[in-house]
Amino acid sequence: MERVVLRYKNSIISGLVINELNDLVTIKSSNGYNLTFDRSEIEFLERKNVEYQNQRKMEEIEKGSGSKKISVLATGGTIASRVDYETGAVSPVSDPELIFGGSDILSKFTISVKPIMNQFSENLRPSDWITIGERVAEESRKADGIVVAHGTDTMSYTASALAFMFEESRTPIIFVGSQRSSDRPSSDSRENIEAAINFASTDFGEVGISMHRSTSDGMVSLIRSVRSRKMHTSRRDAFESIGTPPVGLYDGSIRFLGDYRHVSDNIKFRSTMDDKVALIYFHPALSADDLENMIEGKHAAVIMGTGLGHIARDLIPVLKRFVSNGSYIIMTSQCIYGSTNLNVYSTGRELLSAGVIEAGDMVPEVAYVKTMYLLGQYPHEDFVDLFRKNMRGEILERDQPFESLKLVG
Amino acid sequence: MERVVLRYKNSIISGLVINELNDLVTIKSSNGYNLTFDRSEIEFLERKNVEYQNQRKMEEIEKGSGSKKISVLATGGTIASRVDYETGAVSPVSDPELIFGGSDILSKFTISVKPIMNQFSENLRPSDWITIGERVAEESRKADGIVVAHGTDTMSYTASALAFMFEESRTPIIFVGSQRSSDRPSSDSRENIEAAINFASTDFGEVGISMHRSTSDGMVSLIRSVRSRKMHTSRRDAFESIGTPPVGLYDGSIRFLGDYRHVSDNIKFRSTMDDKVALIYFHPALSADDLENMIEGKHAAVIMGTGLGHIARDLIPVLKRFVSNGSYIIMTSQCIYGSTNLNVYSTGRELLSAGVIEAGDMVPEVAYVKTMYLLGQYPHEDFVDLFRKNMRGEILERDQPFESLKLVG
Repeated sequence: MERVVLRYKNSIISGLVINELNDLVTIKSSNGYNLTFDRSEIEFLERKNVEYQNQRKMEEIEKGSGSKKISVLATGGTIASRVDYETGAVSPVSDPELIFGGSDILSKFTISVKPIMNQFSENLRPSDWITIGERVAEESRKADGIVVAHGTDTMSYTASALAFMFEESRTPIIFVGSQRSSDRPSSDSRENIEAAINFASTDFGEVGISMHRSTSDGMVSLIRSVRSRKMHTSRRDAFESIGTPPVGLYDGSIRFLGDYRHVSDNIKFRSTMDDKVALIYFHPALSADDLENMIEGKHAAVIMGTGLGHIARDLIPVLKRFVSNGSYIIMTSQCIYGSTNLNVYSTGRELLSAGVIEAGDMVPEVAYVKTMYLLGQYPHEDFVDLFRKNMRGEILERDQPFESLKLVG
Repeated sequence: MERVVLRYKNSIISGLVINELNDLVTIKSSNGYNLTFDRSEIEFLERKNVEYQNQRKMEEIEKGSGSKKISVLATGGTIASRVDYETGAVSPVSDPELIFGGSDILSKFTISVKPIMNQFSENLRPSDWITIGERVAEESRKADGIVVAHGTDTMSYTASALAFMFEESRTPIIFVGSQRSSDRPSSDSRENIEAAINFASTDFGEVGISMHRSTSDGMVSLIRSVRSRKMHTSRRDAFESIGTPPVGLYDGSIRFLGDYRHVSDNIKFRSTMDDKVALIYFHPALSADDLENMIEGKHAAVIMGTGLGHIARDLIPVLKRFVSNGSYIIMTSQCIYGSTNLNVYSTGRELLSAGVIEAGDMVPEVAYVKTMYLLGQYPHEDFVDLFRKNMRGEILERDQPFESLKLVG
């Protein structure tokens, strides 16, 4: 890795070169930002090679004197790493003192950080969800609260998977990530973890996500995992609670805004996932052949249709054949917000006749994880009933029978 | 079709049965709402068959005495149809007097409504975009402004396609839809069309979308088609201008909020589309084989990756092979908001090395339409440069070179 000092316009900037591509040079500057320059606009004043040590230590560290014991399971991602700008070393942040030194966290809690894997979250597969779930189940027999540090990219998928796995939990299970690593001045890492540890000390017996509520500091949301979605690529308040307020807030103290399932004396945990499930985004050039290829060999396909849950009419026979062979088609909407409703237009009614199952207002990615969980756990004859049941708060409760009225009226 | 009168709790409700599925009965009530009942909770007081006439007349109607001539091209969808609750007939709303009687629209404009197709928008294919584009080009030689009435489901796709087709336009081209049909008390149809006709009378020389700004009446947005996205399945303010304010507002008069391309003396119109383009949603169970099947035979694939534009690392070799065979991979983000940035993490840098092209802050569906347009129109050696160029306002302008700083700092 190269350490450089360069001139751009009137500024002298130093940092580590992290990428050179064609005419663009990207450096991580000493104050923690990534900066991209056009090579023709900069002048290098100094370039020197520095040793790059990828020393990701995997040991556990326990610190603090509080009576409540919180286990932080680190899986990787931005929140779990920091770069040393002198040496270029990337290392996991596993010492709670480095994170919480100066705050009262270590007098309130005993915190042990246990790295269980070291992956950017885009690399995690359903088998990793099971590994994480099993480690959480194991830890939750010993600790008062569990925090899972996770990359933000697929955090909603993993956290939703754990929500389905844990029908009952002895402790809160709080996922936390950060949009900007802890070495950046604008990092959200410390606030998100501090909030996560506090949420993990309550009687919230579900799986939640602890992330910034707004772009400014000072307020962190607890979002029910099965209503969460990453809605911005880079902002610190990227995670939203879709269609409903967050369950709780932390701004130094905790305020719950809604009901939740309380911790239980027992753990009810089942972890098998069926990964033969596709998630398909309908688009105007999608042909019947394309669709056939995408669903072949799958046990189910979750489609992100248009509007209330539609696809082009000429694709419906493909779905009908798939369903008649004993597989499942779930319809969600690429609108993200709102609910499917296949009773309004003729396309929707034809989809229902073909045996398509509506996801209602479930978040599309959550409908996908739920499908994998149900097919991995339960007899197939129970699938449709269980899918429609509100198992973990993934469905927003509505009055019946005026459902259609509320949605489209 | 059956006309029924039923009792539900203390209410007597009448309407047309539009669906019966297992234990659920859906009726379109006389006041225009769809209502779904559990069969066990209702009592039928009356059921009688009524004739169902699907009399979609396709004639043109011209009305009004204003000097500005606006052509409304109807393609189908909610905005173009109404149900007669006495007879069950579904017919297009093509008489401007039915729509605008009582307002001053017909004294300000001469409006001709021309049905050019009658399709729910989920059925429209890229070939339909060309048909619509050609009819718009033809009409824009004769009229002062063009309004295209379109189903809302894929309106952003079609309107974006036309935005790329028209490098210059003699008239405004304003798409309009409605989330609730004109026979419903809560319809947004009339306000959206009234605004569209007014927007179509300005010097806005681009392709825009005219839809409700909020759930209440009174304010309609003009959204640049290439920044638009349907973000709610049912709300009247479903369309958002992603990452930037709308170009204009209408609340009885027009206010422009930003710059726009003005109408020109000429039409520059090119309509060929390459429909061998896939739009792929990355998800944790997506295997290398799945991905290979999805891109085989395509000229390009637009991927909706996670976060800043990532996919699981073990899929990258598949993309690399595809690119080395002369095809294109475009990376967008399933976050919808924000920009891709493949320079921040190692996964992103590996994607860049594999030849993946970043879409930056282009809306994923717009990146997809742009890819189809460019591959259909230009020599392939120009693709990358043109794709990165801001052709129609599809890219939000940012300062260079602090792009990365702004995105992730």
